[in-house]
Amino acid sequence: MADNSSRVDGARVLADLNTLRSISAYKSGVHKPTFSEPHLRSLQWLVQRLPEAGLAGDIDGIGNVVGSSTKAGPKLLAGSHLESQNFAGWLDGPLGVVYALEAARVINSDSSIKGAVEVAAWCDEEGHFGHFLGSRSYVGAVTEADIDAARDRNSARTMREALASAGLADRPRARSERGRHIGYLEAHIEQGETLESSGLKIGVVTSIVGIWQYRISFAGEQNHAGTTRMAIRKDAGLALARFCVDIDDRFPALSGPRTVWTTGRITLDPGAPSIIPGAAEMLFQIRDDDPGVIARLEDHLRSMAADVSAQGRCTVAVERIRTGAPALMDASFQQAIESASAALAGGRSLRMPSGAGHDAQVLATIMPAAMLFVPSIGGISHHWTENTDDDDIVTGAQVFVDACRRLLTP
Amino acid sequence: MADNSSRVDGARVLADLNTLRSISAYKSGVHKPTFSEPHLRSLQWLVQRLPEAGLAGDIDGIGNVVGSSTKAGPKLLAGSHLESQNFAGWLDGPLGVVYALEAARVINSDSSIKGAVEVAAWCDEEGHFGHFLGSRSYVGAVTEADIDAARDRNSARTMREALASAGLADRPRARSERGRHIGYLEAHIEQGETLESSGLKIGVVTSIVGIWQYRISFAGEQNHAGTTRMAIRKDAGLALARFCVDIDDRFPALSGPRTVWTTGRITLDPGAPSIIPGAAEMLFQIRDDDPGVIARLEDHLRSMAADVSAQGRCTVAVERIRTGAPALMDASFQQAIESASAALAGGRSLRMPSGAGHDAQVLATIMPAAMLFVPSIGGISHHWTENTDDDDIVTGAQVFVDACRRLLTP
Repeated sequence: MADNSSRVDGARVLADLNTLRSISAYKSGVHKPTFSEPHLRSLQWLVQRLPEAGLAGDIDGIGNVVGSSTKAGPKLLAGSHLESQNFAGWLDGPLGVVYALEAARVINSDSSIKGAVEVAAWCDEEGHFGHFLGSRSYVGAVTEADIDAARDRNSARTMREALASAGLADRPRARSERGRHIGYLEAHIEQGETLESSGLKIGVVTSIVGIWQYRISFAGEQNHAGTTRMAIRKDAGLALARFCVDIDDRFPALSGPRTVWTTGRITLDPGAPSIIPGAAEMLFQIRDDDPGVIARLEDHLRSMAADVSAQGRCTVAVERIRTGAPALMDASFQQAIESASAALAGGRSLRMPSGAGHDAQVLATIMPAAMLFVPSIGGISHHWTENTDDDDIVTGAQVFVDACRRLLTP
Repeated sequence: MADNSSRVDGARVLADLNTLRSISAYKSGVHKPTFSEPHLRSLQWLVQRLPEAGLAGDIDGIGNVVGSSTKAGPKLLAGSHLESQNFAGWLDGPLGVVYALEAARVINSDSSIKGAVEVAAWCDEEGHFGHFLGSRSYVGAVTEADIDAARDRNSARTMREALASAGLADRPRARSERGRHIGYLEAHIEQGETLESSGLKIGVVTSIVGIWQYRISFAGEQNHAGTTRMAIRKDAGLALARFCVDIDDRFPALSGPRTVWTTGRITLDPGAPSIIPGAAEMLFQIRDDDPGVIARLEDHLRSMAADVSAQGRCTVAVERIRTGAPALMDASFQQAIESASAALAGGRSLRMPSGAGHDAQVLATIMPAAMLFVPSIGGISHHWTENTDDDDIVTGAQVFVDACRRLLTP
C-alpha cells in the first residue's frame, strides 16, 4: 500500500495546479469563465498531458475532455472541471482534474495494477451557460435544442457562438459507453469549514444535496408614497420582507440537521423611492439530501403563501423553477476512500454530505460515483482568496490515488 | 360673488385639459417626460394662450413659462406643471396650469377687479432631472453648476443636452422680483382618497410634508448557499428583511397621525440564487409635516441599526440622503379657499396636509403660498388611470378662481 502511494509525486501535483493557475491568474485566484481563452488553453494543456498518463483524447463538441486508455482490465473514470466562477479560486475544479491525472500517471503505467484510470474535464460545471452541460452531455441528457438555447449568463453570447469561435462546432460530443467504467471518482475542495474546524483532512461524501429553487411573487397595489395612508397600503415589498422573516422563524423547526435555505435575490417593482411597490419577487432556494424534508418545507411555504393571500392585502404565488433530486454516493466507493484515508491520512476523515452541486451527481445517474473533499482554509469558496494548505493538497492526492487503486484491485 | 364665478367657463377648462391630454395621449393618460417633444409642445400651447389672458411670456432657459401682466394693482402668481411621470395621468400638473389660466382669463380682463393673476408652468416638478428644478430656479436656488450636473434619470441625457436640443440653451432664466406677488396659489388633484371617501369636493392644504430619505446599508459575509451552514451565516439580505419588518412593527407607536414611510427599493449583492448576500441596501423614506416626529423616527432608526450591529452578525449603516423641511401654507390664503368653497362648493371642504411634494413648497420659501385639492377617483395617482369627475373639475375651477378674486380684493 505504501509502495503505491509513495509513487504519488506531490511536487508534480502542486506544479500542475500552479501551471493551471498561471493561465489567467487573478490575484491569488483565477478568472476563467467557460469558453474563455484561458479556459480553452487549460483544456489544451490537459489534452497535452494525457499521453504521459497513457491516455488519448481531445476537446469534444461541448468542451469536455475525456481521455481513454487501451490498457486491459477495469476502468475507473475520474475528473472534475477546469473553468472557474468569475474572479474565483484556483482549486475549485482543477484540484479534481489534476488528482485524476496524477492517478492515471501513477496507475496506468503500473503493470501490477490491472485496469486504468481515465481522466475527464467536464465543461461548464460552474454554470455559465447552463446546469452541468458537459457531464450531462456525456450521460446523454443534453439535446441539440438544449445547446441551441444555452446562453452565457454574463455576456448573452450563445453557446453555439462560443463553440464556433472555439473551433469546436463540428466535433462530435463524447458519450459514455455502457459498462465501460466501474464508476466515477471526483475530488474537490470542501467549500465549507467543517473539515478545517475539526482538524480533519479528508471528507468522504455520502450524498450531494438536491437543490430546489422557487420564484415567490407578491402582488399588492402600486401607489404614491406620500399620499397613501399606511392603513390602506398594499405594499408588496413589505409583504416580501415579512415572508422572508417568517421563513427564517419557522423553517428551523421543520428542517433537517443540514438543510439550508437562501433568498439570493429580491426585486421590488417599480423600485423607486417615492412609489409603494405594487409587485415584488424573491428567488428562494432550499438544499437538502432528504427529499422528504424538502417536500415538508415546500408544503409549508405554500401554506404560508396561502395564509398571506387569505389576509387580503397582498397575494403570494410560489412557483418551483428548479428541482434537483439528491444523489447518493456509492457505499463501496465511500469505503475505499475511508480505507485509503486510514492508511495515508491517519484516519482523519469524516463522512459528510456535499451542500454544493458537482458533476458526480450527474455521473451517479449512470454509474457508481463518489467524492473526496480536502479542507478549505476558512471555508471560503467562490472567491479569489479560496485556498487549501499545500500539505493537505498532497495528502489528498495520496488518498485519492490510493482509493483509485483499491477500487481497481478490490 | 356669484357674478364672478359665473364667468368661469367650465367647458373651456375641460376642453383645455383635453387638448393637453391629446398631446401624447397614452390610453386615458399621457406620456410627457420633461423636455420630451410633447412636453415642449404643451409649453408652446400655453405660451400661445397667454395673450387671451392679458399676459405675455415665453419658455425660459430652464423650461419654465411665467406669463406677466401689465395691469395695475396687486399680482397673484398661480400655476403648476405640464410634464408628467412616465405613462401617467392627464391631470397631475395640467389641472393647476389650466385653473391658473382660467383665473387669468376671468380676472385680468375684469376692470372691476384691481390686480391680475400671473400664470406659471414650472419645469420638471416630476423630477426627471432633479428636484423642482424649474420653481427652484425661479426662486434663485439653482446654480449653473446644478444644471451642469443634472441628468435624465431614464435616459442619462444631460439637462444641458436637453436644453440645447429644445433651443433653450441661450435663453435667460425667469427670476422672481421681490415684492411683485402677493403670493402663490396652486391647484392639484389630491392623489389620495380622503376627499372622495368623505364625499368632499375641495381640499384646503395646510402644509406640504417634508420628505426625508435614507440609504440603509447592510454588510454581512458573502458565501456559498450550499456549503455554509445556517448557524454561521451572515446574511445581509435577511438582516435587511428583519429591519423592514421591525420598522413596520415599531414606527406606528412613534409616528404622528399622518406619518408615512416606504421602502421603495431593495438590492441584494451579488443577487445570485446560489450565493448568500454579503451586502444589501434599501432606499427608505419618511414623510411628515412635523419635523419633531421625523427626528424621533430617525433617532429610532439609528438606534435599531446600532442594536443590529451590536449583535455582531451584520453591520447596518443609516445614511440620510435627502432632507426636506415641511412647508406651511399661508393661513389667510387657506381662509380664502375655504370661503370660496363655502360660497361655491356647499362648504364641502377639508383642511388637510399634502403628502406629496409640490412646487408650492418651493414658492413658499419666498412668498405666502397655498394649495387647493380636487378629489382623485379611487385615490389613484402616478398611473394612467388617474382621473377626476368632470363635475368636480369644474367645481374646483370655480372655487379656485373665486379664491384668486378674494385674495386680490380682500
